[in-house]
Amino acid sequence: MIGHLVVIGVGLIGGSFALDLRRQGLVGRVTGVGRSHANLERARERGIIDAIATDAATAVADADLVLLAVPVGAMPALFRELAPAMPAGCLVTDAGSTKLDVIAAARAELPDHIDRFVPAHPIAGAETSGAGAAREGLYRGKPLILTPLPENQAADVDRVEALWHACGARVTRMDAAEHDRVFAAVSHLPHLAAFALVDELAGRQRADAYFRYAGSGFRDFTRIAGSHPEMWRDIALGNRDALLAELDAYVAKLGDIRELLERGDGAALERLFARARDARHLWLKNRHD
Amino acid sequence: MIGHLVVIGVGLIGGSFALDLRRQGLVGRVTGVGRSHANLERARERGIIDAIATDAATAVADADLVLLAVPVGAMPALFRELAPAMPAGCLVTDAGSTKLDVIAAARAELPDHIDRFVPAHPIAGAETSGAGAAREGLYRGKPLILTPLPENQAADVDRVEALWHACGARVTRMDAAEHDRVFAAVSHLPHLAAFALVDELAGRQRADAYFRYAGSGFRDFTRIAGSHPEMWRDIALGNRDALLAELDAYVAKLGDIRELLERGDGAALERLFARARDARHLWLKNRHD
Repeated sequence: MIGHLVVIGVGLIGGSFALDLRRQGLVGRVTGVGRSHANLERARERGIIDAIATDAATAVADADLVLLAVPVGAMPALFRELAPAMPAGCLVTDAGSTKLDVIAAARAELPDHIDRFVPAHPIAGAETSGAGAAREGLYRGKPLILTPLPENQAADVDRVEALWHACGARVTRMDAAEHDRVFAAVSHLPHLAAFALVDELAGRQRADAYFRYAGSGFRDFTRIAGSHPEMWRDIALGNRDALLAELDAYVAKLGDIRELLERGDGAALERLFARARDARHLWLKNRHD
Repeated sequence: MIGHLVVIGVGLIGGSFALDLRRQGLVGRVTGVGRSHANLERARERGIIDAIATDAATAVADADLVLLAVPVGAMPALFRELAPAMPAGCLVTDAGSTKLDVIAAARAELPDHIDRFVPAHPIAGAETSGAGAAREGLYRGKPLILTPLPENQAADVDRVEALWHACGARVTRMDAAEHDRVFAAVSHLPHLAAFALVDELAGRQRADAYFRYAGSGFRDFTRIAGSHPEMWRDIALGNRDALLAELDAYVAKLGDIRELLERGDGAALERLFARARDARHLWLKNRHD
């Protein structure tokens, strides 16, 4: 049971977390902090938060848990703002899509409180955002990764884990560097690849003549190109090294395909397509959510 | 009204066409031709076809319309087989995803009947295939491109158009070269890009550790990597020149993004992502189906 939860960034991620905990009576009251007053008003109208605070330091003065659900690029300034205001027993967790950079920022800006910072990443993105997109049950069956710090006490990590469990998430723990490598490959690179494809077309003189004939394959392939530009700017920069390595591997694979295509090696192309299809079928079959 | 329709390749595309025409009483009887007897049996059980023919030449002897719904790489041999058997008044159309190569094959192999060949491309792919995947209404609201030949008589083109209209398709006419350029960009390249991404991951030693954390973004981005390998081999080879040009443009765009990422230009990355998101939103808003 959390007496006072402060959610900084009451969007899809932060708002849905608060909704699930309220529904289950696991939280006393919820204060929302954010840049957009209109969004916070919407969150209050929807019953996601009880109160609005415009400055984070004041809001956390009597908080029991603070969730940072803002673009990862906004975390360093936020940690800096919170540092002098954090009450001793208060836990801090985040929902950032990258972990090494957020942890580094916490170490740099919140050093006296670092043992109480439990880094987390819920895998429940969508191309929608804002308090209007938040909903109960968003996390049901979805993975939630914890990347605990050596400084964390086991009881604090367990407490954060229990809250995500209560939201229905499948919680696993992972090394932060491994987390960033894995998500560069399965999430961050696909986003970049989708943004790239749409931008390539959109920049053409006769873009309309192309878009007009785009079908359902294009729609699904590019769904994630509808994602939040600022959030993805921060993720890309925050996970730059792993993402550059993934970009290079992807472009090399596209180069292999180009070579097969140029020399008309149909058998090798078909083998590659079949391998990809089979791997995807197997993945879908073994998938939990 | 078509007395005798011969469908060569009774899968998702050919089977759904036959189902729609039968439902509306626009066809007398339907004969199916194909490589897999089991698939043809399934098509007969499902009421898609009345009769099974194992050889195309015999089947078309008294046909009024022949639909070629096979991978585009199989078209040349099929035209060659049909050439000596085509009855004078019989129309031929196809459902190939590429047009210049299919037209070239028809000119080479079916020269005496070229005026009766009306090339077409229904945009209703899915990652499912076979007679089991065929269904009524597949084409409702979907685009259908006709790329008529100078040799075609207007009445013949109109007749093929009317049948697709009856299936609910939105028919447009287009130059074949323009068709191939457009579909290289909005369909063929995305398929290659999705196959490449999955194959890149699948080839890793610890592929499991990656796939385990792939979420809904990955699922949608790679949906088309579940497509038919042989069909996409043929499309890639059939539209090689346009596809190579699109691959190069895409890799160049990924290179631009790499450069922005490497030098940490967050503002430019965010602008690019926002441009892509806005273009996609606009496209979705203007979409018909």
